[in-house]
Amino acid sequence: MQMSPHSYTVEVIVENKPLARDPEGETIQNNLILKGGYKQVTNVRAGKLLRMSVNTDTPDQARDLVKKLCDDLRIYNPAAHDCQVRVIG
Amino acid sequence: MQMSPHSYTVEVIVENKPLARDPEGETIQNNLILKGGYKQVTNVRAGKLLRMSVNTDTPDQARDLVKKLCDDLRIYNPAAHDCQVRVIG
Repeated sequence: MQMSPHSYTVEVIVENKPLARDPEGETIQNNLILKGGYKQVTNVRAGKLLRMSVNTDTPDQARDLVKKLCDDLRIYNPAAHDCQVRVIG
Repeated sequence: MQMSPHSYTVEVIVENKPLARDPEGETIQNNLILKGGYKQVTNVRAGKLLRMSVNTDTPDQARDLVKKLCDDLRIYNPAAHDCQVRVIG
């Protein structure tokens, strides 16, 4: 096992593909936000966030590792979801 | 109703408070990621993401509106959760 000196925070966002409907987001928008009077909100999409701490040498390695892990372990369903991976800070 | 010329994307992240346990994140880390051999991942926290499109004049107004909405409509439970609001792009 190799020693890796930095800990990076990586965010994974899993959400329905843009063309797919999102019943959870629609419900929050229609039955909560619009009924609450916040008409400035024109769209809501719901998703899942995973925040991971990852030990690697560089931010790029952290991002690549997490991307690989998400595909490899089927953290999301590529037929239905988009998966975004970002290194924070 | 006043016309607002800009549409801003605002992300809302709801997650358990840092001192509270997060069974979902722990399960993903222990039973999926570590068993999959990704030992560089030292921590996983799970949360909910809402991405909203908001019509306001400025990004600050968009953020303030969404913060108010989250408190007002009880989008999260302030006793158990942290709620982060960010304007994107």
